[in-house]
Amino acid sequence: MQSKNFKYPDTKAFEFVIQRLGEKGIFTKDIAQITYDLQADKIDDLNVVLLEQQVIEVLHKREVLNSMMVGLELDRLAQEKQLAEPLQEIVANDAGVFGVDEIIAIAIANIYGTIGVTNFGYVDRVKTGIIKQLDTSEEHVNTFIDDLVGALAAAVAAKTAHAIA
Amino acid sequence: MQSKNFKYPDTKAFEFVIQRLGEKGIFTKDIAQITYDLQADKIDDLNVVLLEQQVIEVLHKREVLNSMMVGLELDRLAQEKQLAEPLQEIVANDAGVFGVDEIIAIAIANIYGTIGVTNFGYVDRVKTGIIKQLDTSEEHVNTFIDDLVGALAAAVAAKTAHAIA
Amino acid sequence: MQSKNFKYPDTKAFEFVIQRLGEKGIFTKDIAQITYDLQADKIDDLNVVLLEQQVIEVLHKREVLNSMMVGLELDRLAQEKQLAEPLQEIVANDAGVFGVDEIIAIAIANIYGTIGVTNFGYVDRVKTGIIKQLDTSEEHVNTFIDDLVGALAAAVAAKTAHAIA
Amino acid sequence: MQSKNFKYPDTKAFEFVIQRLGEKGIFTKDIAQITYDLQADKIDDLNVVLLEQQVIEVLHKREVLNSMMVGLELDRLAQEKQLAEPLQEIVANDAGVFGVDEIIAIAIANIYGTIGVTNFGYVDRVKTGIIKQLDTSEEHVNTFIDDLVGALAAAVAAKTAHAIA
Repeated sequence: MQSKNFKYPDTKAFEFVIQRLGEKGIFTKDIAQITYDLQADKIDDLNVVLLEQQVIEVLHKREVLNSMMVGLELDRLAQEKQLAEPLQEIVANDAGVFGVDEIIAIAIANIYGTIGVTNFGYVDRVKTGIIKQLDTSEEHVNTFIDDLVGALAAAVAAKTAHAIA
Repeated sequence: MQSKNFKYPDTKAFEFVIQRLGEKGIFTKDIAQITYDLQADKIDDLNVVLLEQQVIEVLHKREVLNSMMVGLELDRLAQEKQLAEPLQEIVANDAGVFGVDEIIAIAIANIYGTIGVTNFGYVDRVKTGIIKQLDTSEEHVNTFIDDLVGALAAAVAAKTAHAIA
Repeated sequence: MQSKNFKYPDTKAFEFVIQRLGEKGIFTKDIAQITYDLQADKIDDLNVVLLEQQVIEVLHKREVLNSMMVGLELDRLAQEKQLAEPLQEIVANDAGVFGVDEIIAIAIANIYGTIGVTNFGYVDRVKTGIIKQLDTSEEHVNTFIDDLVGALAAAVAAKTAHAIA
Repeated sequence: MQSKNFKYPDTKAFEFVIQRLGEKGIFTKDIAQITYDLQADKIDDLNVVLLEQQVIEVLHKREVLNSMMVGLELDRLAQEKQLAEPLQEIVANDAGVFGVDEIIAIAIANIYGTIGVTNFGYVDRVKTGIIKQLDTSEEHVNTFIDDLVGALAAAVAAKTAHAIA
């Protein structure tokens, strides 16, 4: 059902992502803080306010928005038990060998090159800041969102690293 | 909500994927035929029956099953208008710059190395065999399934290429 | 031997790549022509002169330059028989299952998202224009350069596709 | 100069990689130890001897061998100042924004799926065990080898994680 006349709704996509993150208590400054923690030992004079501007800039990229929307919707659908089995239980249990959450996250992290991918691998493991809270929630399905937030912070770290080198 | 005791339902995942493909009129021999068309000029004595066995073998890999299930579910959800906007209209229209369908497909194609990725890029463009029918359907949302089928055929082509080299 | 004070030589890298391509008879307009051929059926009013400007812009990205330099040097080293065995004979013979040439090329193609990767897969197979000449040279080792040129053209195609969507 | 009759020298490639790693003081048990450290908190009854067998098995995969050979040769060539400028100084200085070392390493890490990629990102950052020594050597160019070793350990971790899930 491909339509040649379809016009891409970038603004709506940005608003959707910001709202969904907000509903889970995640704001652009939280993501900037993860980037800060990732880079503080490498870059002098790092500034969380300026990093937050970079987070917002990266969140305007279409590839980022598309991947974020898919992940956020899959979390919602699993939360509302709308996925078919066995995918429903795999996503709801955040099975460690699922991998599709990381596939989508790595695509975001990779937007500014491999530095983003390695930074993502690190935050995915140490689960700093807001990511830790997401990962240990008992109430909500956060299978995709914790990886998406980590990937976004990692992409901003890569963007910053290239800018100063 | 991660559970350490969760046991992965590989058999159910395989059955889910086979059934969903079947509902869209796609059988393992159709996928083997795409692989055959991809490789016929490169490998002598290629045999569709043997390739179909390889398709079934690749379809038992967990990473493949996970990516297939996510894509097939997203097509169904878009068909039933269950995705939130603007993702709903983006997936329903198979927007060329969406990209998440290709991200997931490339992860499948890459399972046997880069030969799979380049073969996927080729089938994604020329849309041979059953893929053409999927891509031009007016009734169904086939945004993910055409890429998934192409990626699977491409992965089998890569597996075969390595086996004989 | 990592040095914190090392300053990145972007201009020298750009000049290196342009010169090496030129020595093999490849100019930015040839690459723009491949992009044109890739996109002509999809985009109206495509213009090779404007595409050439995009090629030059993409060739200023550091990730692109780094990958190009590595590939171009490996071709030269194999041509001059300076690689250790068995890598020397693998690169000199452009073995189909080598794959490192495609790994580096896909990293370039992916810079503007998955559209670049699928376009690269297509040109890698059909080997249009200057790529065909490179691939069939009897005199020179062109194991990396044909993939690099195809990846560059594919990246420009992806950049253009996003710009108009 | 592609030859259809070229037969792939897998055994020679394996011997080359083992010898080069040995010359830098890296043995399969060191790599198994990195995998152990990565997985010890996740898997009970982990055994370094069994992990070393897995390291050796992964080191027999052709894609792994190809990527390892390219990286190890680039380190040697940079050490012997045989790369053209500006690539020579970029590799010799292990510039943080180079990225080709990580591109090749991630291709290895990804062989058993995304778990390998995230594990690689983590070891690339914390630089455990033998990787730390490689990274801080004053005498040798170890730009690629530290990433290759980390990627190999990460791939084995992914292989192991899938086996027990």
